[in-house]
Amino acid sequence: MKIKTIMCNTSQTFYDENVGVRLALATEEVELLVVNIKHGPESMESAYDEAMGAPSIIEQVVLAESEGCDAVLIDCSVDPVLRAAREISNLPVISAGEASHHAAMMLCSRFSVITVLPVSAKLIYENIHKYGYADRLASVRSANVPVLDLNNEEVATKAIYAEAIKAIDEDGAEAIVLGCTGMMAMRDKLEGMLGVPVIEPYSVGVQYAAAMVRLKLKQSKLAYEKPSDKKFI
Amino acid sequence: MKIKTIMCNTSQTFYDENVGVRLALATEEVELLVVNIKHGPESMESAYDEAMGAPSIIEQVVLAESEGCDAVLIDCSVDPVLRAAREISNLPVISAGEASHHAAMMLCSRFSVITVLPVSAKLIYENIHKYGYADRLASVRSANVPVLDLNNEEVATKAIYAEAIKAIDEDGAEAIVLGCTGMMAMRDKLEGMLGVPVIEPYSVGVQYAAAMVRLKLKQSKLAYEKPSDKKFI
Amino acid sequence: MKIKTIMCNTSQTFYDENVGVRLALATEEVELLVVNIKHGPESMESAYDEAMGAPSIIEQVVLAESEGCDAVLIDCSVDPVLRAAREISNLPVISAGEASHHAAMMLCSRFSVITVLPVSAKLIYENIHKYGYADRLASVRSANVPVLDLNNEEVATKAIYAEAIKAIDEDGAEAIVLGCTGMMAMRDKLEGMLGVPVIEPYSVGVQYAAAMVRLKLKQSKLAYEKPSDKKFI
Amino acid sequence: MKIKTIMCNTSQTFYDENVGVRLALATEEVELLVVNIKHGPESMESAYDEAMGAPSIIEQVVLAESEGCDAVLIDCSVDPVLRAAREISNLPVISAGEASHHAAMMLCSRFSVITVLPVSAKLIYENIHKYGYADRLASVRSANVPVLDLNNEEVATKAIYAEAIKAIDEDGAEAIVLGCTGMMAMRDKLEGMLGVPVIEPYSVGVQYAAAMVRLKLKQSKLAYEKPSDKKFI
Amino acid sequence: MKIKTIMCNTSQTFYDENVGVRLALATEEVELLVVNIKHGPESMESAYDEAMGAPSIIEQVVLAESEGCDAVLIDCSVDPVLRAAREISNLPVISAGEASHHAAMMLCSRFSVITVLPVSAKLIYENIHKYGYADRLASVRSANVPVLDLNNEEVATKAIYAEAIKAIDEDGAEAIVLGCTGMMAMRDKLEGMLGVPVIEPYSVGVQYAAAMVRLKLKQSKLAYEKPSDKKFI
Amino acid sequence: MKIKTIMCNTSQTFYDENVGVRLALATEEVELLVVNIKHGPESMESAYDEAMGAPSIIEQVVLAESEGCDAVLIDCSVDPVLRAAREISNLPVISAGEASHHAAMMLCSRFSVITVLPVSAKLIYENIHKYGYADRLASVRSANVPVLDLNNEEVATKAIYAEAIKAIDEDGAEAIVLGCTGMMAMRDKLEGMLGVPVIEPYSVGVQYAAAMVRLKLKQSKLAYEKPSDKKFI
Repeated sequence: MKIKTIMCNTSQTFYDENVGVRLALATEEVELLVVNIKHGPESMESAYDEAMGAPSIIEQVVLAESEGCDAVLIDCSVDPVLRAAREISNLPVISAGEASHHAAMMLCSRFSVITVLPVSAKLIYENIHKYGYADRLASVRSANVPVLDLNNEEVATKAIYAEAIKAIDEDGAEAIVLGCTGMMAMRDKLEGMLGVPVIEPYSVGVQYAAAMVRLKLKQSKLAYEKPSDKKFI
Repeated sequence: MKIKTIMCNTSQTFYDENVGVRLALATEEVELLVVNIKHGPESMESAYDEAMGAPSIIEQVVLAESEGCDAVLIDCSVDPVLRAAREISNLPVISAGEASHHAAMMLCSRFSVITVLPVSAKLIYENIHKYGYADRLASVRSANVPVLDLNNEEVATKAIYAEAIKAIDEDGAEAIVLGCTGMMAMRDKLEGMLGVPVIEPYSVGVQYAAAMVRLKLKQSKLAYEKPSDKKFI
Repeated sequence: MKIKTIMCNTSQTFYDENVGVRLALATEEVELLVVNIKHGPESMESAYDEAMGAPSIIEQVVLAESEGCDAVLIDCSVDPVLRAAREISNLPVISAGEASHHAAMMLCSRFSVITVLPVSAKLIYENIHKYGYADRLASVRSANVPVLDLNNEEVATKAIYAEAIKAIDEDGAEAIVLGCTGMMAMRDKLEGMLGVPVIEPYSVGVQYAAAMVRLKLKQSKLAYEKPSDKKFI
Repeated sequence: MKIKTIMCNTSQTFYDENVGVRLALATEEVELLVVNIKHGPESMESAYDEAMGAPSIIEQVVLAESEGCDAVLIDCSVDPVLRAAREISNLPVISAGEASHHAAMMLCSRFSVITVLPVSAKLIYENIHKYGYADRLASVRSANVPVLDLNNEEVATKAIYAEAIKAIDEDGAEAIVLGCTGMMAMRDKLEGMLGVPVIEPYSVGVQYAAAMVRLKLKQSKLAYEKPSDKKFI
Repeated sequence: MKIKTIMCNTSQTFYDENVGVRLALATEEVELLVVNIKHGPESMESAYDEAMGAPSIIEQVVLAESEGCDAVLIDCSVDPVLRAAREISNLPVISAGEASHHAAMMLCSRFSVITVLPVSAKLIYENIHKYGYADRLASVRSANVPVLDLNNEEVATKAIYAEAIKAIDEDGAEAIVLGCTGMMAMRDKLEGMLGVPVIEPYSVGVQYAAAMVRLKLKQSKLAYEKPSDKKFI
Repeated sequence: MKIKTIMCNTSQTFYDENVGVRLALATEEVELLVVNIKHGPESMESAYDEAMGAPSIIEQVVLAESEGCDAVLIDCSVDPVLRAAREISNLPVISAGEASHHAAMMLCSRFSVITVLPVSAKLIYENIHKYGYADRLASVRSANVPVLDLNNEEVATKAIYAEAIKAIDEDGAEAIVLGCTGMMAMRDKLEGMLGVPVIEPYSVGVQYAAAMVRLKLKQSKLAYEKPSDKKFI
């Protein structure tokens, strides 16, 4: 099968630094098409960034069908334009953020998300309320490290760790969800330091997208009706 | 004061048909700047439409400051890019959908929304969960009339009425929120037919936006932090 | 239009000290009739105070119609006898507490209320659960200053500020609702000190009551049925 | 022990018709002091009735201590002034409505309440949300029989039965709570007809009040702080 | 009447140490049959313990009918196999944990449970969510004292007190529920030390079970349908 | 990797009829060890059945480690002893019911479960509340077909279809979860008939268990602490 994963930013540096760790998840069964978007913000950290990159994310979602893909993964923890993607696509659409929360819910009672910036934390917090399982959320905390600074792994790991420990000790979290797919390389180290499950959204997203293909499942058109044809200027 | 109200579609016909009833709400105190967006769908009915019109709505929100406006009203019941607008703007941003739900909650225990299409109903339903007061929602129903057909008022009124009666009789609604700002002209007639409060979102939105200006209130920057400067391609 | 606002206590000192700042909100369009109640507690701070003042508040609500009023505002943050007032009155009835919470919900994700006494805090906390949007509440805190001591503005401001800062730092509040209409004069100063929106319930209540009159909306009689005629001893 | 139970209306007929079935619950251990209120509505069916009878209910609550009582039972399903009574009293205060809901929750997953009038149903519905366990509520329905007509037992039983069957078949109720203490005499017959537990609030309230006395428990003063001394006019 | 109370562990020492304080609650009206289980863990502290003791608890529940009992009390705060017991039994089945939570809800707005071990705390926390009134829960804390060490009353009381004070000061609890029926002997002392209601689950359970017998109420068979006959190996 | 899947009943016929369709999901990467339990009910349909089979399910969970397994799947939609299994095991433990609900939540807004018997429906309904995402549940319905009659596929399919259509039309479900792993063979046919996603719990469970192994994730020991060593009789 072929899964298209869409980085929701326009930074070529981010792409170059993160494409390798993504492609390393490909197997004989699962081909990965790793792309980024052509127009929009150089990093996806806020609802404003989401709005500005929205048409370009949708463009990549729509293209996936003609590219022979079997599923689409929104490669971002803030789940940008997820509902729109599910409406317009005939393929199963999974998003890294949502998938990571579901995985957390099978591993603990209450989880915390550690994300990049305060503005990202507010958006993820709102998403979890929108999805309807906020009772399982201990907290969403920000490490105060912008996406494009995550490549300074030592500093970033330390900042994420500091918030994760507070999430566990003060907020009651029993597992930690990384709140940005740019944190992928740090998962193993953080799990070792924290001693609780650390859930990395991109890798969970790939697993869940592949599972949907194997299970022949995709989003219900009663929930995500195809938008009617109309003029766009 | 000057309030900018942003129709979230690109249909000039819709603008021409609806600008008059909007400007009629202006008073000596409240000047209204009624605009539509330059790029995006000819009607705003789905998350897909929202994604495609997102940058253009934001463009109008940002322009409001240099146009000397005191507040911005998102003139749409699906509240497109509301969080993004609140992040980027220094003016109070109100949205017609959210404001209409709050008004309903001061008038009854449980309300229903009657909107245009099934896909719009799902989006509004999700919004109300995101906002955290779904316990007060009886139902979101669709009249199955596209936005651009609302100008056939007789047909549209009949279809909205049919769903509103079901909302009252079967779902327990005690008040009806119109789920599209294109239904503005039909409010009085529908309230007469239904005998319960009928809440029209555009007019509520104007009232609430004006109230925020008088009260010198705007969105908290702790909740809607200004996105950091970054490159957009 | 003419709005009757009902102070829910019998202290003439409170009336004298607070009537001016209220009448200052009147405009050419909005006439204000500011009254207090004839029987009941000298300050409204508990459910017990509410019970003891209940018939006298209702008396003022009922009188409003023959006084030519267009709307009624319960001038109190604990929303005393709000449901009863909506049942018995043919005018739109708004209450300062409820209105202030709704305003907060359009300005942030989570708000805190800072009220006068612990017993008042419990009552407001319960009200917010009753209204069904407790998910948006960060906390209700008490400044431990009785209503009748609020006229010592320096002391009161300091006490309210101390709790508001804790609400922001420890409870996650992004906006502060003043939990007593006797705190009206301190709003501007507190907003300056806190740097987040500070919502004052009386002024919000006047705005929302006037909005309802302009919108020709009042409470649904399906939700607030008129009580049947019966004997009262 | 001695439990004071307070009928929350002023109808002497209601008292005369209902005092016997109440006193029949007295035992060697449990003495019952059955009173009604001196001022207020002839039947307690709405928030308006609650407001008008509030001081007189409180008067009876306060008197209980000097009458040598060990506990107080609010003898009404709408739980009038329950919070106020718990604030002012040094005795444990139980209310028939609240107690009946708790009993239902130990007997089934979801219960319905069948009460007298639509206006009473709205009030009970709001109370259950205030208490925070609305997830366990299937519905609140009204038999449309005023309190003072319940003495026509045949008609009343039929009307209650008709709504209870709808609650079971359409709303998913597995047990029925009688939503008025005036329905006491009909419980056994209704349980026989319905085949599910039928919970009668007065008798449950007496049991729970007696239990609190035996357990030496009463309401927490952290939750129901004693109101401060003040002037009442 | 005769109530069978089932200690959910196999420790004879625990039985011997705790049977006296239980039998002391018997009255002329209420006979108590105090038993423990024949197979399973020596203390009931986790879901694993519950699973291992499950058939033996059920065995005692089923036996109760032929022993002439009128009600069954699960004598454990983690409510082991409560649903199963209600399905299989024709007698009213009450459980100490659930009953203690309901009592707490009539005494305060928010309560905390102080239980034995962290693993027990997680199970009780999950139960309260399952029962649907988690909004009333301030916290579940563990005193970190195993059940079988509770007989060291001085140490145990100190540890429970330390957590209860944190529950009150940090979590907002207004009443404390003891989260193990083995803490029965310490209730009075703890209530004296804490100054808030301390709810002991065994004694509440006996009261509620007796109340159900007097009220002729038992669990609804619509909620707890009798399992169909089948083969067990 | 090797995944042990545990049928939670003792019927050899059920095993023989269902082992093939399970083993057909094995791949070169994923070896499946399909077992049933040695003691307990011939079908798992109620909390009583769960209690009676509990120790034997745990026995199989514990054995998995010495059998060289990498993960355990509870092969049952009522998720029997799931918490206990997660406490006692060092392997990731997934349960078919819980996994199927999570899958549904990525495919729609609201789902319904169609299970075997009314008593099973109540248990699944309670589980979903325990898990904390009941807001996403449209309904749990019973097809009224015992597990051991599911091998009459024509009758069973018809009965499941009849309830699923009601779930969609009356309850607002947009996807259907099969509420018994014995319905596995009917999924494709039912999805064809219904036109919405039909989620089969065993196959989803295998996918999620395999994903956890690949992701090196297992349940948090903060949430599912290892029970302390103690004597079992």
